[in-house]
Amino acid sequence: MISKEQFKYFNSLKNKKNRLNEKKILVEGERLVFELLKSNIKLDYLLISDNSSFSKIGNNIIKEAKKNKTQIDTLDHHLIKKLSQTKNNQSFIAICDLPEYKNINYNNNILALDHISDPGNMGTLLRTAEWFGIRNIILSENCVDIFNPKVIRSAMGAHFYLDSILNCNLSNELINLNNNDYSILGADLNGHQISKIKIKKKWVLIVGNEANGLSNTILNQINDFITISKHGNIESLNAAIAGSILLNTLVNK
Amino acid sequence: MISKEQFKYFNSLKNKKNRLNEKKILVEGERLVFELLKSNIKLDYLLISDNSSFSKIGNNIIKEAKKNKTQIDTLDHHLIKKLSQTKNNQSFIAICDLPEYKNINYNNNILALDHISDPGNMGTLLRTAEWFGIRNIILSENCVDIFNPKVIRSAMGAHFYLDSILNCNLSNELINLNNNDYSILGADLNGHQISKIKIKKKWVLIVGNEANGLSNTILNQINDFITISKHGNIESLNAAIAGSILLNTLVNK
Repeated sequence: MISKEQFKYFNSLKNKKNRLNEKKILVEGERLVFELLKSNIKLDYLLISDNSSFSKIGNNIIKEAKKNKTQIDTLDHHLIKKLSQTKNNQSFIAICDLPEYKNINYNNNILALDHISDPGNMGTLLRTAEWFGIRNIILSENCVDIFNPKVIRSAMGAHFYLDSILNCNLSNELINLNNNDYSILGADLNGHQISKIKIKKKWVLIVGNEANGLSNTILNQINDFITISKHGNIESLNAAIAGSILLNTLVNK
Repeated sequence: MISKEQFKYFNSLKNKKNRLNEKKILVEGERLVFELLKSNIKLDYLLISDNSSFSKIGNNIIKEAKKNKTQIDTLDHHLIKKLSQTKNNQSFIAICDLPEYKNINYNNNILALDHISDPGNMGTLLRTAEWFGIRNIILSENCVDIFNPKVIRSAMGAHFYLDSILNCNLSNELINLNNNDYSILGADLNGHQISKIKIKKKWVLIVGNEANGLSNTILNQINDFITISKHGNIESLNAAIAGSILLNTLVNK
């Protein structure tokens, strides 16, 4: 049984400041907890809703958690709902160490996010980056917190596999990348096709804010603006979609 | 001034059955209302929040709506909030005709969605399809309603430009497409690279459900399963991301 105090503590992790102070995060949902168990991040607690009926993954989670000697507790489903940040009923919520990241590896390609504010877009971009093996992420100031529960949920486990996530002044970091011989590529509605430009051995792809695109402060640091051919009437693509299409093209060219 | 009765009527359009009966929908948000005004869909009302401060787009909306002699009303921001289905405060909500679509044009490429349940994914896929000029959409039974306000919001105007959106029994429709000489392509984790397969002059890309992928009932009707090379550890890509990357490759190959 978890105590009232423990519940209060778990609930406090919904708040960014508390997550950073405690170096703990909440991870919710069957698939995500399963990904967490596959990673080497330390799990403190596994909370299971008292009205869960388990799928195959659910049973595997419990088996794995028992093997790892994780503390498992059944919790009233109303309390699970209170802890959860999604509308869907969750069977599992885990409390685990905040993942720690290494420094940027300046031999590898990089995804940079410039003022990405929507948690779904942020999570999806981290998920796609990891899918393509891009494990170095740079975040400008004012991006949504990467440990926001909605970001964690949309990233579907990317947090547990990424090598490095650097929060920085993007403009300063681009000077650094330029000195390290990176092609600095900005996703833009009025850019060039990737096939039409010359890209160095290493690149950083910068995806800008959902409503306003790339920040003015970095525009003159960009070597090439790259785009996705438009055939229809619509004004723009979703930022996560545009970033993912460009990543696919860059990785496979 | 809009009456209590009118407000109740607008609010009732959040419900699918009422939308279909009345053939009216709610469209919220500055950018989306702006897209709506550019299209040839009839606007009945434009509701403006009484605490709005207008951007350039906002001023253009009001100018355009006045030119079209749309009925414009200022509404208490609490009432606007009540009508709205998003958390962000909206300055504008429009009530307009439900878009009407033509029959599928069997000379054009098609995007088919199989049990897509997340409104954000559905809207994003419609947005991407329209961006690439794919204006024929086929929806299996049990997809989320395309006029769900969250779908409309994520589609960012695609609803106003698409030619045809067919709700159907997907398996029956695939027989039809096969007879019309389409390559029937299914997005799948275990498929082939698009560059490795032979595709006919016309194709339909089928994107399956977020959690379960393509329906068992259509698997044997698919000519080729197509995939996106994985370089990382993550289990899968988001359905809208995978569909969009494949659309980009198909359209530009």
